[in-house]
Amino acid sequence: MATQSREIHLKAYPQGAPTPEIFETKTVDIVDPGEGQALMRTVWMSVDPYMRGRMTPGIKSYIPPFQLGETLDGGAVAQVIAGGTKDLKVGDYVVGFTGGWREYWLTDGEGLTKVDPNLAPLSAYLGVLGMPGFTAWAGIENILKPKEGETMFVSGAAGAVGSLVGQIGKMRGCKVIGTAGSDEKCAWLTDELGFDVALNYKNFETSDDLARELYKHAPKGIDTYFENVGGIMLEAALSAIAFGGRIALCGLIAVYNDQRRAPGPNNMANLIGRGVLMRGFIMSEYIDQMPKFFAEIAPAVASGEVKFKETVYEGLEKAPDAFAGLFRGENTGKAVVRVSPDTV
Amino acid sequence: MATQSREIHLKAYPQGAPTPEIFETKTVDIVDPGEGQALMRTVWMSVDPYMRGRMTPGIKSYIPPFQLGETLDGGAVAQVIAGGTKDLKVGDYVVGFTGGWREYWLTDGEGLTKVDPNLAPLSAYLGVLGMPGFTAWAGIENILKPKEGETMFVSGAAGAVGSLVGQIGKMRGCKVIGTAGSDEKCAWLTDELGFDVALNYKNFETSDDLARELYKHAPKGIDTYFENVGGIMLEAALSAIAFGGRIALCGLIAVYNDQRRAPGPNNMANLIGRGVLMRGFIMSEYIDQMPKFFAEIAPAVASGEVKFKETVYEGLEKAPDAFAGLFRGENTGKAVVRVSPDTV
Repeated sequence: MATQSREIHLKAYPQGAPTPEIFETKTVDIVDPGEGQALMRTVWMSVDPYMRGRMTPGIKSYIPPFQLGETLDGGAVAQVIAGGTKDLKVGDYVVGFTGGWREYWLTDGEGLTKVDPNLAPLSAYLGVLGMPGFTAWAGIENILKPKEGETMFVSGAAGAVGSLVGQIGKMRGCKVIGTAGSDEKCAWLTDELGFDVALNYKNFETSDDLARELYKHAPKGIDTYFENVGGIMLEAALSAIAFGGRIALCGLIAVYNDQRRAPGPNNMANLIGRGVLMRGFIMSEYIDQMPKFFAEIAPAVASGEVKFKETVYEGLEKAPDAFAGLFRGENTGKAVVRVSPDTV
Repeated sequence: MATQSREIHLKAYPQGAPTPEIFETKTVDIVDPGEGQALMRTVWMSVDPYMRGRMTPGIKSYIPPFQLGETLDGGAVAQVIAGGTKDLKVGDYVVGFTGGWREYWLTDGEGLTKVDPNLAPLSAYLGVLGMPGFTAWAGIENILKPKEGETMFVSGAAGAVGSLVGQIGKMRGCKVIGTAGSDEKCAWLTDELGFDVALNYKNFETSDDLARELYKHAPKGIDTYFENVGGIMLEAALSAIAFGGRIALCGLIAVYNDQRRAPGPNNMANLIGRGVLMRGFIMSEYIDQMPKFFAEIAPAVASGEVKFKETVYEGLEKAPDAFAGLFRGENTGKAVVRVSPDTV
């Protein structure tokens, strides 16, 4: 059995877009589990846009900033390889918001949920059946509340969250329009996921151009908007929003790296004249609805009704690159890092 | 009895801030009321920021743009002087969203509400007991939903809407912070209306300066924000908003005149991390709650518990100047135009 664990630390806070150089790898000795502790082996780790927020010191947010020189943390699927807790025994697989950015770690089991490796591939518990999937479902259920026959718009539609948003929109009987950053991603959205319209945002220079295109597909405007991106996407959505529209503000990845804080949309007044609700959220607010999400989406994933893609980075040492890739728009679906094999 | 009526037309759409030169006065013959019609004499007319939106051709909003060369329209208190309808007889006073910008007019009574001249001064039905008052109440009841002990922030606090917002905030047990454009207005807010804090926004250069001041008075952040202004006020509010905060977006007078559409707040991401709801609205959405508003606020106005101020312009010919004054921040409380005496 391994006696040492590699862990990734943050060496410096990013200025603008994060690059692999701000990270460093350290090797530490593995400590044997004590009474009531389990030693975990990370199988998959997650890189997520929200982590960028934790790399801004002093920010007031729902989760504290990462500290320089300490091991980073984040979502992971892991297996118990020694010791155990009241609920966990050797061989069990779990998912949790901790355990990322490292190979081995100790836990008392708090915050970890056992997962079934036979229901779905293990990595799915970091994506479509994990935090991003639940984020999509929770924003739709609690904020967008789409009605059959309405039009739903989603940005970052080929991403981990957006790709499920659109598929749930179709399950709810909506016309679904998504934006993504390449023609290939767009083809996946319409041909595989059942989106009605997919727009490559790189073809639109201004928010007015994009808004005109939205009106072509939604002459009465878009009823709901799931925002993952910001920038011209948000401005176009505010131009094309229908009376009584709802906006779930989930992410603004286009501006996360902006040191000077990019200006917001220039048409906020539309929210007034059209009686629009905009609600920012993070999924942890709704965490007690997780079983309801799982009950609806897990069978749909198992049956293949809900589809998902992953961009896989092989090896813990690729984690910094995987994270930086989020901001280069390189990934389709969920970006995950394979830290060790499913079974050893 | 008069045989001619003066009416105010829009000669040109404003470029930027409206000036009196874009209006002109025409004189028309008064037509005798037909069967089921009442001839009305306008007593007070209202000028309101929302009218600026109607002076932008082609805009998609809840109310169509004004047409050049036609008589403008808007809220008024008026008296029946000839004819009558099923509900209205000579001598009755009414308030409605029509009848402004003219001296005499015909009606079939639709959309008009009889008012009691003994309960409150007639002009109050255009202000604290009218559309602005109802706007304040409806935004608080439906969007802000303040809880006792919370902190409420309101911009344009010395205006027709804002001055009631703050007073209702105090009635609901909140700490109330308001912004206004002069020390004199601020003194009125704290000394007469019971605001806890009033800030002259002209003393703050940046939204960060204002946000720092807000945090001084609300160390945990502001729980609710009633937005009438936009600009640095909105940006400061988004900086100082508390977790779970609510924002009622009622007006953005700071940007209504901007031809290039001013950029929005640079810190929209705070809505996400802090789980904030922002809802734009116009009071007509909630119009069926008017009796509930009236039942609470009219007695409070009659008893003097709720206070209000008016800026009175004398004579229909002053209406263009009164309207332009809204955008110069000149008025305290509701701006009204005296078109004819209460009784003739």
